[in-house]
Amino acid sequence: MASAEAATVTNKQIIFPDYVRGFPKESNFKLTTTTIDLQLPEGSTSVLVKNLYLSCDPYMRICMGKPEPLSSSLVPPYETGVPIVGLGVSKVIDSGHPDYKKGDLLWGLVGWEEYSVITLTLYSHFKIHHTDVPLSYYTGLLGMPGMTAYAGFYEVCSPKKGETVFVSAASGAVGQLVGQFAKLMGCYVVGSAGSKEKVDLLKKKFGFNDAFNYKEEKDLSAALKRCFPEGIDIYFENVGGKMLDAVLINMKLHGRVAVCGMISQYNLEDPEGVHNLPTILYKRIQIQGFGVCDFYDKYPKFLDFVLPHIREGRITYVEDIAEGFESGPSCLLGLFEGKNVGNQLFVVARE
Amino acid sequence: MASAEAATVTNKQIIFPDYVRGFPKESNFKLTTTTIDLQLPEGSTSVLVKNLYLSCDPYMRICMGKPEPLSSSLVPPYETGVPIVGLGVSKVIDSGHPDYKKGDLLWGLVGWEEYSVITLTLYSHFKIHHTDVPLSYYTGLLGMPGMTAYAGFYEVCSPKKGETVFVSAASGAVGQLVGQFAKLMGCYVVGSAGSKEKVDLLKKKFGFNDAFNYKEEKDLSAALKRCFPEGIDIYFENVGGKMLDAVLINMKLHGRVAVCGMISQYNLEDPEGVHNLPTILYKRIQIQGFGVCDFYDKYPKFLDFVLPHIREGRITYVEDIAEGFESGPSCLLGLFEGKNVGNQLFVVARE
Repeated sequence: MASAEAATVTNKQIIFPDYVRGFPKESNFKLTTTTIDLQLPEGSTSVLVKNLYLSCDPYMRICMGKPEPLSSSLVPPYETGVPIVGLGVSKVIDSGHPDYKKGDLLWGLVGWEEYSVITLTLYSHFKIHHTDVPLSYYTGLLGMPGMTAYAGFYEVCSPKKGETVFVSAASGAVGQLVGQFAKLMGCYVVGSAGSKEKVDLLKKKFGFNDAFNYKEEKDLSAALKRCFPEGIDIYFENVGGKMLDAVLINMKLHGRVAVCGMISQYNLEDPEGVHNLPTILYKRIQIQGFGVCDFYDKYPKFLDFVLPHIREGRITYVEDIAEGFESGPSCLLGLFEGKNVGNQLFVVARE
Repeated sequence: MASAEAATVTNKQIIFPDYVRGFPKESNFKLTTTTIDLQLPEGSTSVLVKNLYLSCDPYMRICMGKPEPLSSSLVPPYETGVPIVGLGVSKVIDSGHPDYKKGDLLWGLVGWEEYSVITLTLYSHFKIHHTDVPLSYYTGLLGMPGMTAYAGFYEVCSPKKGETVFVSAASGAVGQLVGQFAKLMGCYVVGSAGSKEKVDLLKKKFGFNDAFNYKEEKDLSAALKRCFPEGIDIYFENVGGKMLDAVLINMKLHGRVAVCGMISQYNLEDPEGVHNLPTILYKRIQIQGFGVCDFYDKYPKFLDFVLPHIREGRITYVEDIAEGFESGPSCLLGLFEGKNVGNQLFVVARE
């Protein structure tokens, strides 16, 4: 427990007023200010944290939709009238939980607010032990997106050296890592993204063998054929819709599709039709949807794997960092227009 | 080699004149009569057979389409101007191959003709050793469809006791077996078919827990919800299109879809759009296309498994047997209208 002198301070929050149909907009967020006592009540088993970095991730759009059993199987819908919930890096201010003490750093689910009281459940939060790397990485490379790329690529795609790998939304928080993991394994890797700047990043910074701007390709299937004349062994799916349709007819025999996300579909009332599904049969393709939530038991193994790669410069990471708590809504909205370059987060406080 | 007195006899054939667009019709088949010498030339390594039973299978429609690389990855397109190729049970008349002698029975790929000269390649033909079961079964239960059901269910679906299984085209050559295999394993099994007669067969003869006539259901998803209030663990996919769309939103978390066929799509110029693919992500579903061609090394194991079940009455099989070589085309066309009840074959000769 903290000292008896703990103060009551203001706590800015970004409230989720109501469920969203179609593309979300600024009015789907409401900035408010409340107060919070910086000391937990006697007997609490919760942890009180100060939020430092908050993350904007595409899955959050799924939480913003009207609650329905399908999508709730992956992520719980938001509650209305309370702060948006997202992933963040936070510092412990007070703790009633034996695993955490004041000053500890952690990452996990917190409210979009300056201070949060969190209840720990299995894999909801992870203590941060390594601070020789940028702390913000725990919203990306060393957090949920990194773990997603790791589990998705190594566990779901069953990659082999020399295979051809296609990654969509390839400069995003997850995609840039999948590409680098695939290169480390000796695969031939191509990515798609939505601007020249991102395509340059893929080729020059992340070492993709090739990349294309999907917005400038009239025929996605022809673009894929150009990049993969012999076909695609592994598709790391982040977008869905037309891209998936184009990929399917370019897959190799016994190809694998790991479905990590379908960002092009989240804002649609009805998802687009995908037509080339008979290819699943013709090419004996495997499509596997996955959620990082099923793989968090491997997080320590992931850190052992990835930290040396970061420290020795074999893996790099691009972040799109906005300053200030109030920038949260526009950062999240920007994701669905592809405005972000790399992992999108915003700074609430530096320490 | 056969005796020097071997005769030249007439050989009726059903020729494939040209590639088919849309639904095939009678004019896509041409009956002709040629002659054949019932003795192989000196030094031949081929086998000359008399065809007894010929089989009509949905995959044949894929072979009838204009050759294109996608579908050719599963089955080779037909050559025009020569007999249709299909699976059949045949008797050896003359053999230049050390593994076969006159009088042997075999099943595998033969021309739609009374006599065929066949070239043996790996898994193209299998010698028949067990004749205490109906010989026609080697076009179905003990042939390609049986092996398909076995590999698809046990190898692809990874079934567990107590799981819920849905089979479409469930009274067909493959579906009726998948249902029975699933029951043997202690699964809850529901099938769909296209007539009351077939639905009765599923429930009364094959022991499905429930079944419905898809033609009489206005809302396929509601029908599935009625049969599987808790959702579907395993879908054995034979039809594609609207049924797949309805199944996806009724799948359980970590459900599996084994794509064996998509008969509803083979006659369409462009396959239907399937909209509910985001469910793959939400429910972390696996979809796996497979072809029996990848599993024929397990054929002896399959026979060891299935023959005792047949002999002891635990597995039954329904065949739709037409009489006479000339009935081939109408039998094959009937498949695409769902006219067949059970495995569709026709008798060329009884011995």
